[in-house]
Parts: sequence; C-alpha cells; structure tokens
Amino acid sequence: MTQASIDVLGIGNAIVDVIAHAEEEFLAREGLVKGTMTLIDASRAEALYQLMGPAIEASGGSAGNTIAGLASLGASGAYIGKVRDDFLGQVYRHDITATGIWFETPAATSGPGTARCLILVTPDGQRTMNTYLGACVELRPADIDPDIVAAAQITYLEGYLFDPPQAQEAFRKAAAIAHAAGHKVALSLSDPFCVRRHRAEFRDLVDGHVDILFANEAEICSLYETDDFAAAAAAVRGRVEIAALTCSAAGSLILADKAEHRIAAAPVARVVDTTGAGDLYASGFLYGLTRDLPLPICGQIGSLCAAEIISHFGARPEVGLAELVAQAGLA
Amino acid sequence: MTQASIDVLGIGNAIVDVIAHAEEEFLAREGLVKGTMTLIDASRAEALYQLMGPAIEASGGSAGNTIAGLASLGASGAYIGKVRDDFLGQVYRHDITATGIWFETPAATSGPGTARCLILVTPDGQRTMNTYLGACVELRPADIDPDIVAAAQITYLEGYLFDPPQAQEAFRKAAAIAHAAGHKVALSLSDPFCVRRHRAEFRDLVDGHVDILFANEAEICSLYETDDFAAAAAAVRGRVEIAALTCSAAGSLILADKAEHRIAAAPVARVVDTTGAGDLYASGFLYGLTRDLPLPICGQIGSLCAAEIISHFGARPEVGLAELVAQAGLA
Repeated sequence: MTQASIDVLGIGNAIVDVIAHAEEEFLAREGLVKGTMTLIDASRAEALYQLMGPAIEASGGSAGNTIAGLASLGASGAYIGKVRDDFLGQVYRHDITATGIWFETPAATSGPGTARCLILVTPDGQRTMNTYLGACVELRPADIDPDIVAAAQITYLEGYLFDPPQAQEAFRKAAAIAHAAGHKVALSLSDPFCVRRHRAEFRDLVDGHVDILFANEAEICSLYETDDFAAAAAAVRGRVEIAALTCSAAGSLILADKAEHRIAAAPVARVVDTTGAGDLYASGFLYGLTRDLPLPICGQIGSLCAAEIISHFGARPEVGLAELVAQAGLA
Repeated sequence: MTQASIDVLGIGNAIVDVIAHAEEEFLAREGLVKGTMTLIDASRAEALYQLMGPAIEASGGSAGNTIAGLASLGASGAYIGKVRDDFLGQVYRHDITATGIWFETPAATSGPGTARCLILVTPDGQRTMNTYLGACVELRPADIDPDIVAAAQITYLEGYLFDPPQAQEAFRKAAAIAHAAGHKVALSLSDPFCVRRHRAEFRDLVDGHVDILFANEAEICSLYETDDFAAAAAAVRGRVEIAALTCSAAGSLILADKAEHRIAAAPVARVVDTTGAGDLYASGFLYGLTRDLPLPICGQIGSLCAAEIISHFGARPEVGLAELVAQAGLA
C-alpha cells in the first residue's frame, strides 16, 4: 500500500452506549429483534431508558470502537464523528482521544444532544441495540478533513452512517479523497436492517467504491437478498479486493482474488456481551493489513480481538490488545 | 429485631464513578496513595480526567452500592443522597430506582453538579479514588425523611458522609430517629484517611450511636491509632453489638458479645477491580442480619457478594446475587 502517516481513519456515528442486562421477555414485550439495531427517537429513548435496569455508560459507535481497538493494538488512528457540546460529548471525546487517536471534528453547538445507544444484553450474551442518533445527524461533508483522509492508509466507514441523511454525502466525499490519494476504502455493513434500508446504495458502493468489505452472515445475505450464506459469499466475490465475512462462533471467511481462507473463532471462557464483536474483528483485521501481514493472520488477529471484547461488558478493549497479539505470537 | 417495612435504608454520598485503568507510575506521578480516597475540587477533577485513560461511567457511592447489592439479594431498600438535576443525576436516580429501591431525595436545582469519583484501577486490581463531592455538599437534615428512617429495620450510614459539612447533622438526625423507632444503626468507616479527618466524631458515634460497625484493617487501626490489627479489634470489642472487620483476601473477623468468628474470603478467579468490595460485603452481611441468619452465615454471604464485585469493573453487581447465594446454599 502507499505510504501514509495515519494507519486507519474511522468515520462513523459518535455514540455513547448505555448498557444493561435484560431478560428475553423484556425484548418480546418491547417488540425488539434480538441481535439487531433499531433507530429510535428522543421520546422513545427516554421511555425505554426508564424501563431498563441499572446501566453503565461507555463510549461506543461502531467505527469508534474499531479505531479504539486499533489504538490498543499500537496502530495510529484518526476519527471523524459528530457529538454535541454536552456532557456525553465530552465523555466521548475524552475516551477516544485518551487512546491517542486524532479526533478534531467540532461538536455541534445546537440541536439534539450526543447520540446514545440503549443496549440490552440478554443472558445468552447477545446484544440488542436501540440508537437515538441525536447530534450524529449533524455530520456534514464539511466535517471531512481532506488532509486527514489523504493521510490515512485506510479510510474505514461504518454502514450505520447511511442513516443520518447528510452523512452519506460525507461518506462519498471521504471515499473519493482516499482513492485520489491512492489509499484504500473499507466498509462495514453494520446491521442487516441497516442493509435493508440502504441496499441499493450499499451495492453501488461495494461495486464501485469499496476495497475491503466487512459483513456478518445476516448482513451479506441481506445485501444479496438470499438466505444462503454460500450464495451471498459467491455473489460478493470479485466485487471487492478483500471481503471478510464473520460468522459468530463459526469464525470468519476471507475472500480475496481466487483465494479463500477460513479462520476459526478464538476461544472465550464465557460470552458476557457480544457488543463490539464485529467492530473489534475489524480492528484486528485492519491492523494486520496495515502491517502487510498475510490475510489468514489478519483474520486470526481479528478473532482474538473479538474474543477479548465479548468476554466483558462494553465495546472498548479492557486489556492491551497489542500484548494479547504478542502473547499469541501473531505479530 | 423490631418489625419494619423496609429492610435497609442507606444514607450516603450519591456519586457516579468514572473508572479507568492506570499504571502504578500514573499514581506516583499524580501523588495518589493506592487504595485510598482523596477529596478533590472541580478544577482538579477536570485536570485529572484529562490525564486519565478511556473510562466507563457507572453509578457508585458507598452506601448506594451497598443498597443496590441488597436489592440484588432480594431485600427491600431505600436510599437518601443528593444529586443535582443534571445528566449524571438522572443516571444515578435511574440506576438506583431501576433495582426497586425507594429514592426520593429531591435533586439540587442549583450549585455544583452531581458528584463524581475518578477511579484508577492498577494492574493488581486495586482502586484509587478521587472524589469531587459536587452536589453531595447540599445534603441537609431536611432531606432525612423521618417516616422512611422509622420504617427501616437497619439504617446504614457511610463514613464518607462526614466530609460534606451539613451531612453530619443529617447523619445524627437519622441515627436518633432509627433508635427512637427501636431499630438498628450501622456505620461503615469508609476509608482510613476519612477516619483520620473525623476520628473524634467517629469514636463518639461508635461508642454511643452505632449498633453494627463495618471497617477494614486500615480503618479500624486508624480509629484506634494503632498499627496492630489485633489491638484495634480488642479496642472496638464491646463498644458495638456487632463489628465486622474485613481483611481483603484474608477474609473477615466478626466480633459480637464474647463470640468471635473468622470468615474466609470467597474464591475469585481473577481480581479485576476491587472497587465496592467493602460495600458489597456489607450488602451480604446486612442481608443475613435482616433474615436473622447466624453471624458466620452473614459473613459468608458478605464474602460471596464481595467476590462477585471484584471480578469485574464497577461496584454494582452484574449478576443476580440472590441466585449466587442460593447456589452456595447460604440462604
């Protein structure tokens, strides 16, 4: 890849997670689909919060988690995302910059507050997310700093960013700058319902603007409107340079040119909270790419990072990932 | 004990914890004494926060943690403490009422914001706390609802409450009401430096107003100005009905009349964060007392609850404690 001064730039919805345990009946009663993300408005966010059990607050956001993971691995990172100039916005900025990540997107000074995601973790460790986008809807193309994009070896975009309307344009602007600089664009499909909301745009992006694609089974199946993972994998093959398709406990499948690599999931003593599993897989995978490691090793580092994140509450690493990777002899 | 409609009422500083990992060198550089609590002002809180690594936010406060633990054990609880009508105040109220606890202390509508405690967790799992008292200094005797105090079988007071000046008076008012109703008063000494700040008042309370005393080694030694735990234990014997003295991994010592019980600590696979260990020991111990269980069983339930809390980040239980106690065959 071309020389660049930042390993990975992440662009996404800057969201603080509010995480609580919940029983299966709670999801049923509230009409929530386990394992997915639902967009909610401010009044629903307030009502659902009142119904939730005791919670903890932790910075989240898909691309934010991925970039925090990269920082923990020792990579250099930058982040673009929109918070409000409120308490949660300060928390978000603190948590991401404290890892050494460049994050200079100005906070919105009016309009809705910093986004929050009410996350319900069921006894099986699965997370069900309810996102109030808040200030994220204020992200505009003007927030995309061309110098930062051009300086990044990989620009990583989360699919969720297609929900706030003006962010799509920001997204396309970033991809164009990255490619003009000779660098790579990566996309995560984020969520099957998100794919359904933006299928045409995502297919167009994948065909014309994305070099590295991350998706889980449900997302890639939704993209190609099939129930058959093998068919979906066949459909994406050749459309991007690299597709990394994750399959929860069954590990991941990496497709690149004619090559195909099956990667096992890393062992986890107890799955506590799956929030951030895909985000941290992407951290590990992208870290490997920026170090020019072979694709199977990239996948194994991804698996290792995902395993760490699902072993505790919250989607930011609790231990130094660089150390984990070194202990595993992967880098 | 006399019939009462609430098992335990907790009165304390209502504080949101901001918890981050830190290296030993960070403590040294910032002049912090590991394992203790330091009071800080708003500007120091801001400066220290900027220096801290990525954090999570979780409701805390010593008595708040104890009452949340009691709720998780299946006891009925109430809480009195002061927050501001700000974001963190709403979080605090949500987290405590979501467990079924009565908490109606009105929020302050002016003055400093809701209290926060910046907690640094070193690789050995020890926590070092830096508390900005904020709105806690607004707690007044008028906040002590006499009906709630009279309805509680045990009124539990945290020693930290002696730091905000007007709270001492609230503290004494609650103790007087509880005794007038024929109920018990429990006190936790909280922290060795806190004991040093208020030694005369604490000795007076212990001698005349406290039925059940909780303290760790450092605290009871500070109270009686000795380095010898056995001497401190001998000094407190007979001054209260029950003294439960905790000794970290060495378990606890329970003194009552002529009886003396040594209780082992419950096993923990890995000590992640000791925040709340003493608070949750008190939850388990008080739960046993309200169920009229033998003192050694009270101590064992305390050990079990403490072991749960130190196995993860944060000072509120992550699993149902009632279930843990049932599995262990203790109640």
